Amino acid sequence: MGTAMSPKITVELLRQLRQAMKNSKHITEPLQAYIIPSGDAHQSEYIAPCDCRREFICGFNGSAGTAIVTEQHAAMWTDGRYFLQASQQMDNNWTLMKMGLKETPSQEDWLISILPENSKVGVDPWIIAADQWKTMAKALSSAGHSLVAVQENLIDAIWEDRPARPSTKLSALGLKYTGLSWQDKIVQLRGKMVERKVSWFVVTALDEIAWLFNLRGSDIEYNPVFFAYAIIGINGIWLFLEETRVMDPVLREHLELDGPSKPELKVQCLPYESVYKELQAICASLGPKEKVWISDKASCALTQAIPKIHRSPIPYTPLCLAKAVKNPTEIQGMKMAHIKDAVALCELFAWLEKEIPKGTVTEISAADKAEEFRSQQKDFVGLSFPTISSVGPNGSIIHYRPLPETNRNLSLTEVYLIDSGAQFLDGTTDVTRTVHFGTPSDYEKECFTYVLKGHIAVSAAVFPNGTKGHLLDSFARAALWDSGLDYLHGTGHGVGCFLNVHEGPCGISYKTFADEPLEAGMILSDEPGYYEDGSFGIRLENVVLVVPTKPKYNYRNRGSLTFEPLTLVPIQLKMINTENLTQKERDWLNDYHRKCRETIGAEMERQGRKEALDWLIRETQPIA
Amino acid sequence: MGTAMSPKITVELLRQLRQAMKNSKHITEPLQAYIIPSGDAHQSEYIAPCDCRREFICGFNGSAGTAIVTEQHAAMWTDGRYFLQASQQMDNNWTLMKMGLKETPSQEDWLISILPENSKVGVDPWIIAADQWKTMAKALSSAGHSLVAVQENLIDAIWEDRPARPSTKLSALGLKYTGLSWQDKIVQLRGKMVERKVSWFVVTALDEIAWLFNLRGSDIEYNPVFFAYAIIGINGIWLFLEETRVMDPVLREHLELDGPSKPELKVQCLPYESVYKELQAICASLGPKEKVWISDKASCALTQAIPKIHRSPIPYTPLCLAKAVKNPTEIQGMKMAHIKDAVALCELFAWLEKEIPKGTVTEISAADKAEEFRSQQKDFVGLSFPTISSVGPNGSIIHYRPLPETNRNLSLTEVYLIDSGAQFLDGTTDVTRTVHFGTPSDYEKECFTYVLKGHIAVSAAVFPNGTKGHLLDSFARAALWDSGLDYLHGTGHGVGCFLNVHEGPCGISYKTFADEPLEAGMILSDEPGYYEDGSFGIRLENVVLVVPTKPKYNYRNRGSLTFEPLTLVPIQLKMINTENLTQKERDWLNDYHRKCRETIGAEMERQGRKEALDWLIRETQPIA
Repeated sequence: MGTAMSPKITVELLRQLRQAMKNSKHITEPLQAYIIPSGDAHQSEYIAPCDCRREFICGFNGSAGTAIVTEQHAAMWTDGRYFLQASQQMDNNWTLMKMGLKETPSQEDWLISILPENSKVGVDPWIIAADQWKTMAKALSSAGHSLVAVQENLIDAIWEDRPARPSTKLSALGLKYTGLSWQDKIVQLRGKMVERKVSWFVVTALDEIAWLFNLRGSDIEYNPVFFAYAIIGINGIWLFLEETRVMDPVLREHLELDGPSKPELKVQCLPYESVYKELQAICASLGPKEKVWISDKASCALTQAIPKIHRSPIPYTPLCLAKAVKNPTEIQGMKMAHIKDAVALCELFAWLEKEIPKGTVTEISAADKAEEFRSQQKDFVGLSFPTISSVGPNGSIIHYRPLPETNRNLSLTEVYLIDSGAQFLDGTTDVTRTVHFGTPSDYEKECFTYVLKGHIAVSAAVFPNGTKGHLLDSFARAALWDSGLDYLHGTGHGVGCFLNVHEGPCGISYKTFADEPLEAGMILSDEPGYYEDGSFGIRLENVVLVVPTKPKYNYRNRGSLTFEPLTLVPIQLKMINTENLTQKERDWLNDYHRKCRETIGAEMERQGRKEALDWLIRETQPIA
Repeated sequence: MGTAMSPKITVELLRQLRQAMKNSKHITEPLQAYIIPSGDAHQSEYIAPCDCRREFICGFNGSAGTAIVTEQHAAMWTDGRYFLQASQQMDNNWTLMKMGLKETPSQEDWLISILPENSKVGVDPWIIAADQWKTMAKALSSAGHSLVAVQENLIDAIWEDRPARPSTKLSALGLKYTGLSWQDKIVQLRGKMVERKVSWFVVTALDEIAWLFNLRGSDIEYNPVFFAYAIIGINGIWLFLEETRVMDPVLREHLELDGPSKPELKVQCLPYESVYKELQAICASLGPKEKVWISDKASCALTQAIPKIHRSPIPYTPLCLAKAVKNPTEIQGMKMAHIKDAVALCELFAWLEKEIPKGTVTEISAADKAEEFRSQQKDFVGLSFPTISSVGPNGSIIHYRPLPETNRNLSLTEVYLIDSGAQFLDGTTDVTRTVHFGTPSDYEKECFTYVLKGHIAVSAAVFPNGTKGHLLDSFARAALWDSGLDYLHGTGHGVGCFLNVHEGPCGISYKTFADEPLEAGMILSDEPGYYEDGSFGIRLENVVLVVPTKPKYNYRNRGSLTFEPLTLVPIQLKMINTENLTQKERDWLNDYHRKCRETIGAEMERQGRKEALDWLIRETQPIA
């Protein structure tokens, strides 16, 4: 228990890749460097096993990271959430590039500093985003090198037992869950296209396609999406998805495949792989002034299929924006999902309290138990991300996932952090609680209290309509900063409704500037933390809904917004230095716990979960 | 008194400009639109009378704003500081475009929405920054229009009595004030050029040239700069400045014009107008890999004189960065300047208290008196910007400047806001105080208290080394936001040392993202406000120095920073609801007032200014 993860041995793989970089079977000219980005052809954050190329080559399996292999070097860039994990998963053929630290070079600067003159740097154009391609190509060419699109993926070329692309069962979501038919979503989308004089829109993000068509799949673990592209015209709808996947009569009826109600709503299914060819054909028939929308985060390959004169790259697509502002049905569903989720999590904590003293509960068994309790709730589909169940020092690995070789016992002496969530048919959850089953140290309580102050500062913030989320990030840090502490991740991300647990275009992070302004109906996480390498991790995360509020005044009639917590799980009082809270913070906490008791308590009674109810009532007592 | 400013009548001017836009004497092809930017060829914020082209055409004389004239329309974009002023100064031939409001189109979007197909939009390439040109040209061409560089300025063509370009007396600043010789500054600059493999650096910002050569002039009111360009090579120094301006033996010796100590420090003076030709000549002789640095805010004309292959545009030049971090001599000078400035301002307030009841003090006479008191202080050079002296409703015009037709009497019934500053040989000041000489209303006190809370939240903030200033902006707004209030300007700007009162690359504003991280030695303003149109304005501004601080912990050894106020002028207690301050805020205020009393009081005693000292002691009593 508690031994470090062992790194992947990569000597032989790197030898093979470097050979492929020179082998005319794969490339036209030898490459001096090859870039292995993190994502798939849809720039998904979570990816299917067949797309885990960066993990294959270097061993690091976090959600964000780019590997670059040259003739002499191999380096991997990732951010603060993953420094510890990456250093444990990679062998010493690899250099870890810690993004966000002053001394860490950018990928471009590093390449320029080590490449021989006139080097060729290769990348698979299907898995690099168009905006990233542009930045990289520009930097390299200004230093006399060139970025080369390599059609065959060189990792795939050396990956002998690479898994097949998944093709799971699809299901249709009714109005009861979506609040809006796909037909109405198409009409609204076309309205925006007409308004902006755009003829076509190429949809590449998997969650946008799932949301638009009110369909869900399970091609990617934790994300209820399926591999597809869509091209929406003013009169036509192309869905690039093997027709074999929609043979079920329910799906055919949902998509009106056998006779649409209106001709402009006819969905044409075409093979997934034919998107490039079909897009080229569409572009060949465009009038000189016609415009095609595509996300600037779409793959370089598909973006370049659109001639520059017709191409209109956009940072956030109209679907991304529409999806982010939840409609009343979605909001109701998200609320229900969070109530069920809270019941399950409270049951877990009540169970842990009983079981831990026996000495048999581990990070893995606790995570399994959490999944078991969640799975008993109505409309449970699966987890929304791998449960982070971490004890003591493992908690300082921000995106830790317990493995048999790292698994620690839960005990009465160490801090326990659990960050977990589920997919229900009516919504997606994501919650983190940090607890102690014995007596926390003064230092642990001190740090927890700073994190709580930051959490409340964001959750209770009142701000003008149209404020961007990144402007709230410092509120979450002020108490930590005052004591010289900080955390190296953002404070919040958008959350989908029975969709991806991370979604744009809103968020709360010092790293972004181009986030879209917050609007009532958006749903985000609020999750400050503090991590002491080798000792413990603290994070406190609620999912919150942006709601209108009416403060005393209304400057320039702009209106004000605040957050309503959807997550209703008690915050452990034992971890708090209550004397260090302001009266406003104490009031917030008591009010929050009252809501937990009332809302979750009522659902527990309905479900007859007596033990959890006792635990809930005890954990939600007001503080003085 | 108190009547609104009257707008400029622009019917005839617009007719003449529209004629010029079609007249082949000035242009090769007729223009459908003409852009009149705010700045001069150096992208200065404050400009000489000969460069006030936007004011000439539309009447609005604020520091920021862009006018665009088409065949049918005339529109002017400016930001929240100037909405009221611009609406009063422009006649109804002009549409005011309120930047930052959701419904306001960008210049590009507006042009695209109203221009006929294939339009030509003209602009003088010398007064549009290269980055703005790029954005505008791209947007227009994507909509089928084109941006055209018009060599002759069309405003100059119709401006009959346009003033000549100023050529004021220059003076050299000794080491006593600068702390670093220009020769050492050149050596440091060349070090950075060598490090980044850059052969040449084209300096276009007037304050960078003044700072680099330790020279000052007064070509532009309030800014001690002079019209010049410089090109620095690894071995050569070209200063584009008529040699007649440096005939004074002191200046010749300062610049070592008659025999430099080292050959690589020889300064070659060339005519101001020859910069384009000389830069072209330099570029013609460059090796294939040689790079030339130029600010991406330099004029489009000069930027394009550098072939693209050699051009290396940078957001902040090494001089801009070096100038922002003040050395110990500059910090000492800034402290001295602020002490002298505080003596003068305290004298003003003591004088106002006596004089106002007589009913004869006006906005203009109060501003004049402030200048008189400042001018009695050692090494006074002039004001650092036009004094904003505003009573009651005039205070809500954020960059108000009293004119005879708007001049109001100071009274015992209205709020008085004075934002003023000076240039001393040892430093530049900028301070705002809002006071009431009778009894402020509850609402005025409430708003003032929110603004004070915001001011303190920034001033007392502790944050990690390397934090960007924009991350602190929301701290200044939180108390206002809580009550539904806000202000439509940034919270802070960099301040030069006997240089421009506004300088980059640091600042505290929600509008920027590309500001440079804060470092110890940087100097900024902290100036939240609240403005009630037609009633009053409140602003509370100190100049603050970024200093290291040592909180309890030191996460990842990053170190922490905070601010030390350089401005030491009492904050009027009468305006504060002290019961609404937290204990921490009360402590800050008492500590600040103690520093004012000790530091400024000592200087007043030294100068024998008894009445002001009595006032100071009374105004700095601690609150309970």
